[in-house]
Parts: sequence; structure tokens; C-alpha cells
Amino acid sequence: MGFDKYIRLAHGSGGVETSAILEKLIFSRVEESLKRVGNGVGIDFPDDAAAIPLPSGDYLIVTMDAYTVNPPFFPGGDIGVLAASGSINDVLMMGGKPLAMLDSVVVEEGFPMDDLSKILDSFIGVLRGEGVALIGGDFKVMPKGQLDRVIITTVGIGLARKPIIDVPRVGDKIIVSDYVGDHGAVILAYQLGGDVSMELLEKSRLRSDVKPLTRLMLPLVERYGDYIHAARDPTRGGLSMVLNDWAKVSSTVIVIDESSIPLRPEVASFAGMLGIDPLYLASEGVAVLSVDPSLADEVITYMHSLGFSNAKVVGEVRKSEKYSGYVIMRTVTGGFRILEPPRGDLVPRIC
Amino acid sequence: MGFDKYIRLAHGSGGVETSAILEKLIFSRVEESLKRVGNGVGIDFPDDAAAIPLPSGDYLIVTMDAYTVNPPFFPGGDIGVLAASGSINDVLMMGGKPLAMLDSVVVEEGFPMDDLSKILDSFIGVLRGEGVALIGGDFKVMPKGQLDRVIITTVGIGLARKPIIDVPRVGDKIIVSDYVGDHGAVILAYQLGGDVSMELLEKSRLRSDVKPLTRLMLPLVERYGDYIHAARDPTRGGLSMVLNDWAKVSSTVIVIDESSIPLRPEVASFAGMLGIDPLYLASEGVAVLSVDPSLADEVITYMHSLGFSNAKVVGEVRKSEKYSGYVIMRTVTGGFRILEPPRGDLVPRIC
Repeated sequence: MGFDKYIRLAHGSGGVETSAILEKLIFSRVEESLKRVGNGVGIDFPDDAAAIPLPSGDYLIVTMDAYTVNPPFFPGGDIGVLAASGSINDVLMMGGKPLAMLDSVVVEEGFPMDDLSKILDSFIGVLRGEGVALIGGDFKVMPKGQLDRVIITTVGIGLARKPIIDVPRVGDKIIVSDYVGDHGAVILAYQLGGDVSMELLEKSRLRSDVKPLTRLMLPLVERYGDYIHAARDPTRGGLSMVLNDWAKVSSTVIVIDESSIPLRPEVASFAGMLGIDPLYLASEGVAVLSVDPSLADEVITYMHSLGFSNAKVVGEVRKSEKYSGYVIMRTVTGGFRILEPPRGDLVPRIC
Repeated sequence: MGFDKYIRLAHGSGGVETSAILEKLIFSRVEESLKRVGNGVGIDFPDDAAAIPLPSGDYLIVTMDAYTVNPPFFPGGDIGVLAASGSINDVLMMGGKPLAMLDSVVVEEGFPMDDLSKILDSFIGVLRGEGVALIGGDFKVMPKGQLDRVIITTVGIGLARKPIIDVPRVGDKIIVSDYVGDHGAVILAYQLGGDVSMELLEKSRLRSDVKPLTRLMLPLVERYGDYIHAARDPTRGGLSMVLNDWAKVSSTVIVIDESSIPLRPEVASFAGMLGIDPLYLASEGVAVLSVDPSLADEVITYMHSLGFSNAKVVGEVRKSEKYSGYVIMRTVTGGFRILEPPRGDLVPRIC
């Protein structure tokens, strides 16, 4: 892949172009010893968050994400809920208990005060509900026309006894906690506008799935932490991005069963109408796990007991010389196809 | 002050309007117990950074800042150097030793790859020079026209044995480490454009003072930490903002001597031409300290020995019923005037 003279939307899509540009402009320029603190995790192994070893033996979990979602208000939530939930979930996916947050708000001159008030109220509401402290941040205004409305960047801080460093093992079962792609479908519909999209939103009452997953992950990790070999929330790039990352990093092939994947019919048909694979659509309230096979069924039962009744095994991790690093899907018709990692930019400003 | 229906530039200036909007939309909505972690520091006492108590007795120092400087390249540096130095300095001003950083880059579609490459190279260069690890971050692209070029948000993480919580004490001497207002003057000149400004920049060879202050603060805090009652870098709102904050929080009057303040003649005359008080101009490589009077001279001598030859005592902290919370300046003509906190927006996107 030759290198571009200008930034393209695809570079921010969270797919292969994002990985490539991060490697070229950042990761390759940082010396190995400065990619992490001590025996922790940093950009040497890009995961949901970084982990810094503490003298006590615990790890400090730190994650940072920018939220540029367009529109800032959407069915099911707003950029405030998203910014709080997203970083809380990244801490959780690392096996951490969220403790504190910092937030940077950059807003366009002329933005309605009431809207900003609603957004921040939503944001603080999530923190309140989670018992997460707000300990710092920043606030800046861009002259009119120099920023479209608002960007929120959040830092989530937590503690983990033992961070979950995503390396799936051969034999693992892949579990998803809920329907996938709801958030991405809603944002896609909004951005496309038009009759078809608006009709979808109205008739289906489709809503973003955005929410913090504390009530799932904290008990799950507490009870089964040692058997969860990977955990991530499938945001930009959807389920496909997570599984392709995992297959690559573990040099395995991940085989998934299309008919097992929890997918709302409205999301499936909307994506179908647009010729988009719903497995590339973001979720903002879903956990994907790679679990030791001996306990997979028990984990599913436990997740159901926690209120996550749609949790399902959707596939497994296998060894393969030929397909190492790939994700293969057994289709509803019984055939097989390779599920490529996401490329290009499907929907900018999805989260 | 009535409340606005729309966000104004002044809300992001770092002055009184910023404090007001943060209080109304954020701080007043967070319950006291969720404003900090344990006996640490958070938004209950907005300082350079937050402090989280660790089991070992040390404190984790965490700071977050968004950098929106326009233009992204300026004499003396660029947004990359600024983003790295700014957050490193905030950790230092809290008495911490910088250890790690996370960075979020949000860039406009179409931004030249070479420019982004230079910016990130600068950024990583500062981290390398400081031995600070880069452990995480984010990268997003905004569609063309939805963001002016680039915004970088950084999180600085460090450790402090005892955080410097800014509360000046009666009798303290106020010390500045270097010439003030260089960065603000350069950015102001660039943004104004025009013959006068460009002539200033060319003739004066004025440059931003942006730089990390590790080689000043680490030894200074190591040796005199117990006698430094407040430390801050005077960025948005300049020296005036810092001193007004300090006078308010300590219910003292801070008296400064205009003729003592290190100010380059070019900055003084440029500000004078524009009718702007140079004490409102940002610095990005200066430390302002409130120091126990018994050691102030020794601290000055020590700062000189560290290479900060322009360090000076510029004023002192006093008790006053009438002027509690104010900053009073003894002018070069021998008179007195109140140095108001900054209001309105002098220069948007200054840092």
C-alpha cells in the first residue's frame, strides 16, 4: 500500500488503514522501552486500554478515546452517554474496575447552551450511576465554522488485579453478549438521511445500544477472569474488526457461525438494503469474549442470569496453517466465506 | 451574570467565563464524593492536575488538556511539541515526575500527511527526550470542513510523593522562572496577520517559549518541595489568571511589582500597540511559584544554577481585609492598580 499525501476518511475508520497510519507515524517511531511502563501494557500491544503496574501488584488501567459522533443526539443516547460509557467499557474490557474519569470538551462557537447542558448532564448521569469520580478535564471553544458542533474526549481510569490482555487460545469459544450493530445502524441511518433510512428508524424503533457494561463485566471477570482470554467491545469496525485483530495476534483462525450471531432483523435488512455487512457496524453496549471451552456454557448461563439473555456462543478459535490470521464464517446456507477486516470508511464519525 | 443561549468564544478563554460555565454545567452537578478519588484531588479543587492516592502512599498525578492552537506550526514549535510539553508541565507543576502519556489526534480529511508526520515526530521527540512512555491514545478523522486541521488532546501521568496543591500563604514570595507572554504574543501576531504583526515576528525573532520544564521542576521540587506552596504554568489567561486564582483560593491579596516582571521589550511593545496587557498572554515554558519567604532568595539562586537565569521574585502574598482575593500591581510609575482576571476572549486557540 503506497502512502497517501493527504489524510483520508478511511484513516480514521478504525480498520486496516488506521492500523497502518498509527504504525507508520507513531508506533514505529517510539523506542520499545518507551511503549509501556514497566511490565505493563502500552502501544507495544494495542488493546482496549493501557496497564501500568503498581507497587501493590495491581495494575492501573488507563484508556483514552475521542468521540466525534454525528449527530450528537440520536435514538438511544447522545455523545455524553457515549463518551462516558465508551471509556468505562474500555476499562472493563481490560478486566478493570472503573474508578475515575477526565473529560475534554471542545465545542463550536454558537453551539446552543441547552444542548451542551443536556450532553454534559447525560455524561455526568452515567458517571453518577456508575459511582465513577470526575477528577479533571478541559474545555475549549473553536471559532464558528472551525469545528462541527462538539467533540468529547474521555480518559477512563480503573484498577485491575490482572489485566485481560487479548490473546485468544486455540479451542476457545467466542461469545457475544447481545445483538450487534445497533449503534452503527442508527448512526448510518441518520447520516444517510432520506426516506428509506428515516422509515427504518421510525418503524423499527431502532436505538443505539450505548450503555456501560459494568453490571456484566465486573461479576463476570470476578468469577471467570482466569478463563477469559480476550475481551473487547466491538466499536469502530464492528465484530469483524475485533475478530480479525484477535486472529492475527494469536495466529489462529476464528470460525464463526453466521446463524448464531445475534442480529436484529431490522439491522440485518437495513444493512442488506445498503449492501453493507452488519458485522462491520459498531456496537456500543456489547462485549465480545474469547473463553476457555470448558467453561463456555457456564459463562453463557451466568451472563443470562445477569440479565444478558441474548448472550450466545458464535464461534470458536482453531489452529490452521492455511488460514492463520483469518476469520472464516460459516454462512446460513452452509458455505464458507472469509470475513475480511473492515477497509475504507463506511460511516465517518460513528462514535 | 445572566446565562447565554449560545457558546461564545469567551467561554473557552480560560478566564472568568470558563470558570463560570464549568461550575454551572459540570462541577455543580457532580456530588461531592464523586469529585475526587479518596483523599486525592479532583474537580473539588481544580489545579494543574488531579491526584489519586495509591496504596503505597504516593499519588498518581493525572492531567488532561486539549490543544487547538492556530496555527499548528509557529516560530519556536508546533502543536506536537505543545501538546507533549503542556501536559508534562501540568504533571510537574503538581510536583509529579512524568511517566507516561496518552494522545488523541483528531484531524481533518485532506490534511497533508507530511504536516501530520512532522507534528507527531515533534510530539514523540519531546517524549523521547523526557523518557516518557507513550502508552495509548486514539486517532479520528473528521470530514473536510468539519474541523479546522487538527486537534491533539493529551493525558499526562506521573507520580508524586506529595502533590503541590496550590494554596499560597501570607508572606510567600511570588517567583517566575522566565520571560512571560512569549507564546501568546507569537500566536496573537500570527492570528492577527497584517504588516505590523509580521514585522514584529521578523524583526524581533520572537519565538514561542514552549518547552517541558522537567530540568527545572524535578530538582526544584526534590530540594524545596515542602516550601513551594503553589506552582503553575501560566498558559491561557497568562500570569494574571494564575495570580487571580491564587488570591481567590487563599483569600489573600497578591501584590506584584510591574518593573520586576521579566518581559521581553518586543512583547511589551507589541502588546502595548494592541492595547493588550501582556500579563494576559500565555506562556508555555514558564513556572510561577509561591515560595516560603525564608527560602525565596535561595530558590532564585538555585533556579539560576539550573540555567533559568531570568528567574525573579515579582511580588508577594499579603493579608488584607479590603483587597482579599485581588491582585494589585505596583506600576513602573509608582502607582497601584488592580490586575483584573482575564475576561472575554483575547485570542482563541492560543494553545
